[in-house]
Amino acid sequence: MLQRYLPIVEWLPSYDRHTLSQDLFAAVIVTLMVIPQALAYALLAGLPAVTGLYASMLPLVAYTLFGTSRTLAVGPMAIVALMTAAALSGIVATGTVAYSEAAATLAFLSGIMLMLMGIFRLGFFANFLSHPVVSGLLSASGVLIATSQLGNLLGISMSGFTLIDQLAGLATHWRDFNVPTALIGLGSLAFLMLMRRAGPTLRRLGMTATLSGFITKAGPIIAVMISTLLVWAFDLQAHGVAVVGEIPRRLPPLALPSFDPALISTLLMPAFLISLVGFIESVSLAQMLAAKRRQRISPDQELFALGGSNIAAAVSSSMPVTGSLSRTVINFDAGARTPAAGSFAALGVALVTLYLTPLIHFLPIATLAASIIVSTFTLLDARGLKRTWRYSKRDFAAMLATIVLTFVSGVEVGVMAGVGLSLALFLYTTSRPHSALVGRVPGTEHFRNVERYTTEHAPSVALLRVDESLYFANARYLEDTVYAMVAERPALKHVVLIGSAVNLIDASALESLEAINARLDDSQVKLHLAEVKGPVMDQLKQSDFLDHLTGEVFLSTYHAWEALRQEDAVVTPLQGDPPSRQN
Amino acid sequence: MLQRYLPIVEWLPSYDRHTLSQDLFAAVIVTLMVIPQALAYALLAGLPAVTGLYASMLPLVAYTLFGTSRTLAVGPMAIVALMTAAALSGIVATGTVAYSEAAATLAFLSGIMLMLMGIFRLGFFANFLSHPVVSGLLSASGVLIATSQLGNLLGISMSGFTLIDQLAGLATHWRDFNVPTALIGLGSLAFLMLMRRAGPTLRRLGMTATLSGFITKAGPIIAVMISTLLVWAFDLQAHGVAVVGEIPRRLPPLALPSFDPALISTLLMPAFLISLVGFIESVSLAQMLAAKRRQRISPDQELFALGGSNIAAAVSSSMPVTGSLSRTVINFDAGARTPAAGSFAALGVALVTLYLTPLIHFLPIATLAASIIVSTFTLLDARGLKRTWRYSKRDFAAMLATIVLTFVSGVEVGVMAGVGLSLALFLYTTSRPHSALVGRVPGTEHFRNVERYTTEHAPSVALLRVDESLYFANARYLEDTVYAMVAERPALKHVVLIGSAVNLIDASALESLEAINARLDDSQVKLHLAEVKGPVMDQLKQSDFLDHLTGEVFLSTYHAWEALRQEDAVVTPLQGDPPSRQN
Repeated sequence: MLQRYLPIVEWLPSYDRHTLSQDLFAAVIVTLMVIPQALAYALLAGLPAVTGLYASMLPLVAYTLFGTSRTLAVGPMAIVALMTAAALSGIVATGTVAYSEAAATLAFLSGIMLMLMGIFRLGFFANFLSHPVVSGLLSASGVLIATSQLGNLLGISMSGFTLIDQLAGLATHWRDFNVPTALIGLGSLAFLMLMRRAGPTLRRLGMTATLSGFITKAGPIIAVMISTLLVWAFDLQAHGVAVVGEIPRRLPPLALPSFDPALISTLLMPAFLISLVGFIESVSLAQMLAAKRRQRISPDQELFALGGSNIAAAVSSSMPVTGSLSRTVINFDAGARTPAAGSFAALGVALVTLYLTPLIHFLPIATLAASIIVSTFTLLDARGLKRTWRYSKRDFAAMLATIVLTFVSGVEVGVMAGVGLSLALFLYTTSRPHSALVGRVPGTEHFRNVERYTTEHAPSVALLRVDESLYFANARYLEDTVYAMVAERPALKHVVLIGSAVNLIDASALESLEAINARLDDSQVKLHLAEVKGPVMDQLKQSDFLDHLTGEVFLSTYHAWEALRQEDAVVTPLQGDPPSRQN
Repeated sequence: MLQRYLPIVEWLPSYDRHTLSQDLFAAVIVTLMVIPQALAYALLAGLPAVTGLYASMLPLVAYTLFGTSRTLAVGPMAIVALMTAAALSGIVATGTVAYSEAAATLAFLSGIMLMLMGIFRLGFFANFLSHPVVSGLLSASGVLIATSQLGNLLGISMSGFTLIDQLAGLATHWRDFNVPTALIGLGSLAFLMLMRRAGPTLRRLGMTATLSGFITKAGPIIAVMISTLLVWAFDLQAHGVAVVGEIPRRLPPLALPSFDPALISTLLMPAFLISLVGFIESVSLAQMLAAKRRQRISPDQELFALGGSNIAAAVSSSMPVTGSLSRTVINFDAGARTPAAGSFAALGVALVTLYLTPLIHFLPIATLAASIIVSTFTLLDARGLKRTWRYSKRDFAAMLATIVLTFVSGVEVGVMAGVGLSLALFLYTTSRPHSALVGRVPGTEHFRNVERYTTEHAPSVALLRVDESLYFANARYLEDTVYAMVAERPALKHVVLIGSAVNLIDASALESLEAINARLDDSQVKLHLAEVKGPVMDQLKQSDFLDHLTGEVFLSTYHAWEALRQEDAVVTPLQGDPPSRQN
């Protein structure tokens, strides 16, 4: 019990000086690297920049206690920040104390939901976000996030959480851009894009891969330093360049969030979607990294840990957090061995907040906007779009719906539409099952689709393989298929339903089987079953269907064929293609 | 095209005098038998009794034109009447003109929806109402309908569309019952219940089965005649017995229903549910009867025909209609051969309305209530509840949810909860698929679950049969299953995924297969596929997965076994049970 909910008791006893030094090193790197990002995502969420620092303290400590991934780093994350802003925008005015309080309430609700889902082991909920929907969501919100920062980048005021609102804002106000802001913004953007691609060049100049990797990842901190110096030196603030400004030099105030019932009921759905999206991101990241080091994570405990982190965020005047891709990659590459590295990084951020914030007073918002825009490039997945189109039009439809609706109506609607459409298409597919008449591959005990293979068959025996579990949505369809087949074949005396692909027969399908059995009996045709799976047979025995069955239950299609084909001549194929590698 | 939408052109050309006489006879019987029912269901819907007569004219003519069932009889139906009352009760005051107009609007909306569903061939929607949900719905609404009539039966005023409201009303008002009303009501109830069971006795007295059948079905009309006479003779109306009263001696006024946008938006959801429930009832009835006479119906055209009937109901100041079980059984038993019988019955009802309504002026409402209560007995399906419990706890859960929520919150909520829960449970089941390690049944080419059979296996080869289509909801689950299996078996060199039960591999599952392939490769284990179905293989070829696959694709498990087991000694079982009839 203790081990389940507090994985720290597993690794803490064997914690030694060597691990400590590795974790400490990683923490120093993470602290330096993620500060610009933390400030930027707080702004993206519509919150004061300092909230990003607060979100990088207590939540990290909570994850150290509860997390099962050795290297996952939690903190503010772009999509979650965007969803936070979208959830709060209609309810409270941006920039007010009430807005910050509502963000804490949102984190609290999300934390409670995640914890409950963890306790009740509902991690499988995340499985209902299909890969195409997640990929579509990441791409679309990447675009939304990038567009949302164009205002900050150019020094114009625009807002909106749909692409249409954003583009309309841009079209209306683009002439108002502030020259020094735009120069700093576009300059930072160009610099960051160059740094991202600088790796090969640096290595060609003789640097090791590790060093060049760190330098490219240090892009944001370098851009922050240079642009801050420029603003300070040339007093650009007086020329209209927005800066981070005064940051209170204190630790986050601890307080319970607001429990206003009206606020809570409005935020329930956004909190649920933020939890789900955050969990998916976090757990797939953690799984990927655990696989690299042959470690294991527990998705249900990850839910609990993320819940704990969000509650920690809520009581420290902060915002919803989750496992963050960029933070985690830096942490992993810097050699973090245990979740303790997260707590050390939290300590680092606290020290920065207490002693170094005057240094970032002149940090221009436009540079932060540039760093957000660059970070969205990793979200875009154009290749995935093309691959999915080629592989499955249905999956592509769900992906496209997610993208289009995220653009038109925001992330929440996009996710819900994507999940809804994925489920609807799956149900539709299973409601019209593929079925195949099979015949014997000559000289073997194998039976294959008569339309794909050259097979033997007998006019009085129909071997029908149903390629789907039988349940209410396709029960009537099965009836239609069987009746149509019987109507076409007057010589038929035996219908064998082959159950090798039938994993479930529910009560509605049982009714249909009973109807088929009775109706075939009226036409002097016997119904047989073959290759019924163990669990399905166990369930059929709970009904009296097998007592009424006019035919028999055969272990294999071959047994059925041997027993039933006796009655008439077998039609052997004269010619045909050689069997291919499929059935 | 014409044949699809107007099936009448199929049977009308061969219509002869013999068919005419059979249809006419059936129409006379139906007219007489269904008048009490038509009046009663109008009252159940909260409408003037005459509305039931109106609903038995034009809608029947429309079905003659558009219907594909030779014997289905449309008209008012108990559950649809109850749903009509529930839909309208909160919106307009019962007994007003606005209420009647809203009923016509509801019929119109339902008609348009049914027609559109027919045109777009959406008949398969009905498949999502599973058998347990329909059975639960029928039982629960049977109880609701019966309880709703207790007030009319005893002469007390009570209302409500949930069992709780109804029982509360009964508990508050039962002392106010009117003695003559209760005597007539309970007397009619006792008489009707006796008549329903009189068949065997009548046959024992020497009657033919047909004649005794008609006498038992004539119970309501006999009860109506006797009780009307009693009220008239003893002037019971003056003693508080409610009667049908004055019925205008004219045909239904033709008028377009109200198109008030506020009303329409409120009625959209109820109209959809009424359409769905009505269609399910109607089409399953039509299918059952068509099977008896080896005829075929077209579910999509039935949607269109029911839509036409409801639009006919709407423009003739009437109420939503559907295929009615009791009418249809009478029609079928009386020997109707074509849908023309319906039009003749419509003519009969029109003549009754014009010339015979004075006769039913003194018909007591309590007798109609008794006939409604008796008709609900056919809806109760206690045996189905028990059978479903035995067969499948999941189906039973959906059934129970439908029943309980229909009692607590009415038919609409009950249906939606039942459908929602059925789908959720199906998705949950498929998200945690059964999978089995299989081994060779000694001396054969067959492979069965190692836990159920005595089989041969090789330590370096794992043959894993996955018993479910692979899609987003279970893709990660598959990964976990394979990784756990590999972790347990250090000697493993080959994993063969057997796809005989895999009917679909979606884009998310493809990602998982690619991840499994790469991860097994890291551990020097090869991934193979066997028995991949044709359509699945066609789709896999659209991706580059097969190029990266570390192992091979085998036609059958046996081929895979023969090719891979070479490498090490086969473990032959020493002892075990004989194979049973399952796998």
